[in-house]
Amino acid sequence: MDPDANTLLQRLLNERPVAALATLHRGEPAISMVPFVVAPAQAQLLIHVSALATHTRDMLDHPRVSVLVTAELADAPSPQALPRAALVADALPLARDSAAYLEARARYLARFPDAAQTFELGDFSIFALRVQSARVVAGFGRAYSLAGESLAALLRGIPAP
Amino acid sequence: MDPDANTLLQRLLNERPVAALATLHRGEPAISMVPFVVAPAQAQLLIHVSALATHTRDMLDHPRVSVLVTAELADAPSPQALPRAALVADALPLARDSAAYLEARARYLARFPDAAQTFELGDFSIFALRVQSARVVAGFGRAYSLAGESLAALLRGIPAP
Repeated sequence: MDPDANTLLQRLLNERPVAALATLHRGEPAISMVPFVVAPAQAQLLIHVSALATHTRDMLDHPRVSVLVTAELADAPSPQALPRAALVADALPLARDSAAYLEARARYLARFPDAAQTFELGDFSIFALRVQSARVVAGFGRAYSLAGESLAALLRGIPAP
Repeated sequence: MDPDANTLLQRLLNERPVAALATLHRGEPAISMVPFVVAPAQAQLLIHVSALATHTRDMLDHPRVSVLVTAELADAPSPQALPRAALVADALPLARDSAAYLEARARYLARFPDAAQTFELGDFSIFALRVQSARVVAGFGRAYSLAGESLAALLRGIPAP
């Protein structure tokens, strides 16, 4: 693994506020945008989603998802070389008022204070995306795959916000 | 349909150089980043992909894909309100040296001149993503669905570059 790619993965997950989320919808790939925050110790991404949204039903039906986090276009020499990370994860809802939920809510609100009002709504829930593997593209022809303990160690190494 | 959402869809497709592409990979949703250019008259997006890439094999196995195009974060009041469009499309390779291929290549290279070298490689091909439906989110709580002739008419209304 390229040390630059390790750092890139950590930076993308720590600094970028939104991801593209691919879910399975009635047997077809579906895509949506989600704000997210990383929970380094758990090797998870946290998202806060409405029960009214299609992706939420998709994740309940089929927890395996894929997530894409990209750098700013302004930071890339060309669109083709845009630094990015594609993660495979299992998405599971956190039980409301569990310790994990309360910790996740605090972490999410620290990142997205404007989301406070959606936490007052009964139909929103937090899903934890448990990251299973990652494909990191640091530039043209510079792609790396990560999984297991080496990936978890990288996520744990992301500094607390 | 909100006229602002119509304009937003046209602007996103005309101005943004990359999309997130969700494909079906061995029954699971997979995600990747692709540079794209819109072909307004055909209501298509054009992408240029390597036979070595997983998403290319995925599209050959299962043409139905979903594509997400997002605005710049700097143009949104908050990450949650990031303007975006999610498209459902059928991805089909263009036969090399067909008239459609030559027109698509010219259009793609006009947008991405740096891609000229990849057109010299034997393992790259152009896929046309035939857009079937769109979900446009213009901001928080402002989501619109489009399909059929009204969607095709919007795409045809995108000015030539």
